[in-house]
Amino acid sequence: MAPHPLDPLTPAEIRKTASIVRSHFTGHEPNFRVITLKEPSKKDMVPFLEDYHTSGKYGTRPPREARVQVIARVDDDDQFVELIVNLDLAVIASRQHLKGKHSYIDAAYMKSVEKACISDPRIQEEIKTLHLPEGATVCVEPWAYATDGMIDTAQRTSMCWFYMRLLDSPDANYYAYPLDLCAEVSEQLRVTKIYRLPSAADERIHDRKQPYDKQKVHDASASEYHPDLRPPPRHTTRPYQVVQPEGPSFTSDGNAISWEKWTLRVGFNYREGLTLHDVRYDGRSVFYRLSLSEMFVPYGDPRTPYPRKGAFDLGNDGAGINANDLQLGCDCLGTIKYFDAWHNTSTGEPMKLPNVVCCHEQDDGILWKHTNFRTQNAVVTRSRILVLQTIITVSNYEYIFAFQLGQDASIHYEVRATGILSTAPINITDSVPYGTIVAPGVLAPYHQHLFCLRIDPAIDGHANSLQVEETEPMAPSEGENPIGVGYVTKSRVVEDEQGLDLDFNKNRVFKMINEKRVNPITRTPVGFKIIPCYSQMLLAHPSSYHARRSEFGQHAVWVTRYDDEEIFPSGRHTMQSTGGEGIASGIERRKASPGTSTSVRDEDIVVWHTFGSTHNPRIEDWPVMPADKMVVGLKPVNFFTGNPGIDVAVSTQEKNRSVLVTDASCCEHKL
Amino acid sequence: MAPHPLDPLTPAEIRKTASIVRSHFTGHEPNFRVITLKEPSKKDMVPFLEDYHTSGKYGTRPPREARVQVIARVDDDDQFVELIVNLDLAVIASRQHLKGKHSYIDAAYMKSVEKACISDPRIQEEIKTLHLPEGATVCVEPWAYATDGMIDTAQRTSMCWFYMRLLDSPDANYYAYPLDLCAEVSEQLRVTKIYRLPSAADERIHDRKQPYDKQKVHDASASEYHPDLRPPPRHTTRPYQVVQPEGPSFTSDGNAISWEKWTLRVGFNYREGLTLHDVRYDGRSVFYRLSLSEMFVPYGDPRTPYPRKGAFDLGNDGAGINANDLQLGCDCLGTIKYFDAWHNTSTGEPMKLPNVVCCHEQDDGILWKHTNFRTQNAVVTRSRILVLQTIITVSNYEYIFAFQLGQDASIHYEVRATGILSTAPINITDSVPYGTIVAPGVLAPYHQHLFCLRIDPAIDGHANSLQVEETEPMAPSEGENPIGVGYVTKSRVVEDEQGLDLDFNKNRVFKMINEKRVNPITRTPVGFKIIPCYSQMLLAHPSSYHARRSEFGQHAVWVTRYDDEEIFPSGRHTMQSTGGEGIASGIERRKASPGTSTSVRDEDIVVWHTFGSTHNPRIEDWPVMPADKMVVGLKPVNFFTGNPGIDVAVSTQEKNRSVLVTDASCCEHKL
Repeated sequence: MAPHPLDPLTPAEIRKTASIVRSHFTGHEPNFRVITLKEPSKKDMVPFLEDYHTSGKYGTRPPREARVQVIARVDDDDQFVELIVNLDLAVIASRQHLKGKHSYIDAAYMKSVEKACISDPRIQEEIKTLHLPEGATVCVEPWAYATDGMIDTAQRTSMCWFYMRLLDSPDANYYAYPLDLCAEVSEQLRVTKIYRLPSAADERIHDRKQPYDKQKVHDASASEYHPDLRPPPRHTTRPYQVVQPEGPSFTSDGNAISWEKWTLRVGFNYREGLTLHDVRYDGRSVFYRLSLSEMFVPYGDPRTPYPRKGAFDLGNDGAGINANDLQLGCDCLGTIKYFDAWHNTSTGEPMKLPNVVCCHEQDDGILWKHTNFRTQNAVVTRSRILVLQTIITVSNYEYIFAFQLGQDASIHYEVRATGILSTAPINITDSVPYGTIVAPGVLAPYHQHLFCLRIDPAIDGHANSLQVEETEPMAPSEGENPIGVGYVTKSRVVEDEQGLDLDFNKNRVFKMINEKRVNPITRTPVGFKIIPCYSQMLLAHPSSYHARRSEFGQHAVWVTRYDDEEIFPSGRHTMQSTGGEGIASGIERRKASPGTSTSVRDEDIVVWHTFGSTHNPRIEDWPVMPADKMVVGLKPVNFFTGNPGIDVAVSTQEKNRSVLVTDASCCEHKL
Repeated sequence: MAPHPLDPLTPAEIRKTASIVRSHFTGHEPNFRVITLKEPSKKDMVPFLEDYHTSGKYGTRPPREARVQVIARVDDDDQFVELIVNLDLAVIASRQHLKGKHSYIDAAYMKSVEKACISDPRIQEEIKTLHLPEGATVCVEPWAYATDGMIDTAQRTSMCWFYMRLLDSPDANYYAYPLDLCAEVSEQLRVTKIYRLPSAADERIHDRKQPYDKQKVHDASASEYHPDLRPPPRHTTRPYQVVQPEGPSFTSDGNAISWEKWTLRVGFNYREGLTLHDVRYDGRSVFYRLSLSEMFVPYGDPRTPYPRKGAFDLGNDGAGINANDLQLGCDCLGTIKYFDAWHNTSTGEPMKLPNVVCCHEQDDGILWKHTNFRTQNAVVTRSRILVLQTIITVSNYEYIFAFQLGQDASIHYEVRATGILSTAPINITDSVPYGTIVAPGVLAPYHQHLFCLRIDPAIDGHANSLQVEETEPMAPSEGENPIGVGYVTKSRVVEDEQGLDLDFNKNRVFKMINEKRVNPITRTPVGFKIIPCYSQMLLAHPSSYHARRSEFGQHAVWVTRYDDEEIFPSGRHTMQSTGGEGIASGIERRKASPGTSTSVRDEDIVVWHTFGSTHNPRIEDWPVMPADKMVVGLKPVNFFTGNPGIDVAVSTQEKNRSVLVTDASCCEHKL
């Protein structure tokens, strides 16, 4: 059976695509960086989906296309080329030389950078002068160069940061021993510069050769997280199991999931990782597509070369390619379905990414409750949520991303940040105002995590608007507000593409509405509102490369006209980007272009929510940080004619089988 | 064995107290409104607790005292009197006539108000003129009069709101049919005024007698929530059970709970409900006392008499006395311990409040995870939390309050608002800017829920300070910030009692610190920070009674000097209060009083966090609203020397026993 148009490419399709592309480049085998689905154009997909939801049958499928990026030898030059392959016709539909752009991080290449760096004799010489402790193993961590304006970005540049392991285990936490050394490596794998890092607030890059400060050789036990390298764990937590005797409440058919009144399709690609498509509740269209579209992690240490630390974890690294292989009983509890994904090897073979998404239910406490105080009759329902989760590892950090669907037609998007802080060396007696000392000689620099959730609404159809509502007190007045307690809401509909800010002091609420569909009871347009995650926006100066490259970090909410190609708010190519390709520039360009509409009222729109954390580390984030939760909600607002979860069955002990702790049993359980 | 000094009064102590008080009022049996523990003075408790935690033994107990409030016949006058009873000596230690104050809501009295109102012939006459549909039953809901300046507050006044039931069931949702009628009832149970309610935006109280609008007789099925009155529920959710085969991980000894590295004592009183005391982590003191200290629900409809709707759900109603009797499998899952509480009858007998607090564990997803990308070894721990939960019903609304203790030494306080909206009548074709129409003729007026969490910190001792930290960009400069990406934190310590505001744009963080205890690694004071719930503050005009009565609603964070008697930020007596007794007035008074210190630096301080929601109803909140979650966090910040949860054992499938859904099993499960 042919795949659904929104399904990722199958292994066979990846193979077929590679073969078509291979035959196109004669003489040289291209390095396949990406073979991924080019999602069908919305103009084709909307009628296809409507047809299906009306008739229950699939009509004419949009063309099946693959987006391919290769590094290929062309005219004696290694070119970064993008090809669109039409799989139905087995032809290359388009080819473009992505001149001046860089592909996302190539793990194999980064390995060579590491190897080239550590085997460079000058580096070996530098390491010797450090007089590291006996038994130390040096680790080199290569990072993509975050543009700071000091290096020509035409060629790839890597920054190598140095650490050491003291324990004889490959799982020892080398971030606990950052070294005062740094190297710049060219595309051609040559070490082009070697620095000594600044080690005090007033210090700059230096070339003094100081031996390793013995005081920095702190006890490893406080800095290790791997159980093999730590004292025995606490034995105080008893087993806790989630049992679903009749199985899960969801059903799936390929990538289609149906649960309670929700239906949706799971998508996955190398860059965004998990995506949700065609999200409907009780048959009504709600969202066309939901995805994390980008994230940026700029570091706040101003001293050269630290401004080169600024990671686009999606654009540079890829949330899909870095997704964890999730494990039963570890990453999720209960009855779990896993989704695999397929990527490609550099030779164009399909490569399985196993268990990259898990789907399971969770109990989420009480959904609603009321006790009639006259009869003392209590009615209580528990909230079940469906969780679609993916976890990524990007070098030192991990992010846990989960869409949570509710029985009350709400969707929550939860991000948990965990993992290890990226550290830098500091002198034992120094401190700086842009970092926290988490171990002797170990600085955890301040940084931000800025996420951008892309919300493509389809609120009862595709012509939607963004409404901004504020709550404001009425002025006291004899006639209208004699007691001075009155307050009202005031709304406006956003007319043009723009970025907007949050303001809880005004109870500012952003609603995605369908102005043409009026709720029969409330007599207001149907909609969904955003429950935002209040966060500080980008701190880097607007003139900086960080700011120019991560425009989405300027405002918390953006609204743009839908465009098949506008998926990434910092542009399609973030590696060593120099700015001007993001969401703000796009809006500016369209505004300046005669005849181009920037109207977002009653149009097919996209809403983007930027949120995250200004992560000024606590020592409690060390050596692995307890998950820091950030939550964004999407909730119906006058979309239905009542609580959509009112028909959830009342909770009963018969089904839920809780266990009573008596005082006696509790005493028995004393540990 | 003698009770712990922080334990609520035992039934025997309640009886003993009543007997002492009874013998004090000769000739007349007093109406016992409250017999509750007068918590020992902190000056006595601190050495007692320190002694215990050092030696493991209880030393000299502070005097055991009860706080009693009665309405007693004194000099031919019904006086509201407070007595402090010393139970050790069996004497009355003090007696005070609370002149001009009112006791909290007396359910028995409210029943008489209801009865007096409905049996008043003029009310019956009014009801007749409404020509209600056949079979309708009129319901009267008496509310305490929220001061609007129009009635002398010396005597009790009640406002009676009218509804009708159409179905012949006492559990029918009468809020679905608000009637255009309202009555004022005097302390002496006389109907003093009858109003017709405004029914359009430009309408005021009126005395036209219109028959009930037949269009308002909407289909009850959309407005009912009780399962007996509804179509069968959805049958799509399969059982989900939490199994703890080895029992819970917590132990308890009376009101003392020990779980993971936490120890604390559970308290409970008629007003605040659940309170936590002497909260320690790994033996280190963190909080002396945590409690919800007040909440205010002002309504935003400016039309008389609606400004009389403004409920202090703690001060007027009591979170303890209105706490639900929690049920296994309904209000919580897993292995659960319940706590009972004891209140008193009006004759001074002990009255059991069963199962008012539940204590159980929950799985809370991933606590921390890291995968070493070099070895691909993943280490993941799951987060277990200990939940102490209580649920209250205050007329139409319910609130679910839960303290959640984490293995990473965090505490989260979660509030869920659910229940039924308090409704008002509206003409079928009208709308107003301060309410949502949730059914034909049914207005759900805008209102706020403002909570005040009282945090009595004891961060490594009782001399604490409040530090305000902000994150700000560094100005670009050739020397200090050449690339323009630098940012720093700046902190100040609050010197004097005051209210402060939140600002996420500055990443403003409030830390409770011990300036004398410096973290050996970070070299900064040890502390806990507040993760606030960003909320709009009180909207009522500062000159209004709502504002004067609920001063805590002016600012999100308050800091005051500790005072045994300052527990309630709107004063001890909120019933028909007229203002000037709240947290702001207290600060002002102390500032104006010569020789009174208002210093809060390195002192025994209390921090109060005001948060909540501006609840402009959605129709999805009808007929019972899906729980609206609000969360406040308390997290260690440079209190420990590393992640306190790093020693939590790694998660394993062996212990957690998750179940894999195969494609085959999922198909079988198709519903």
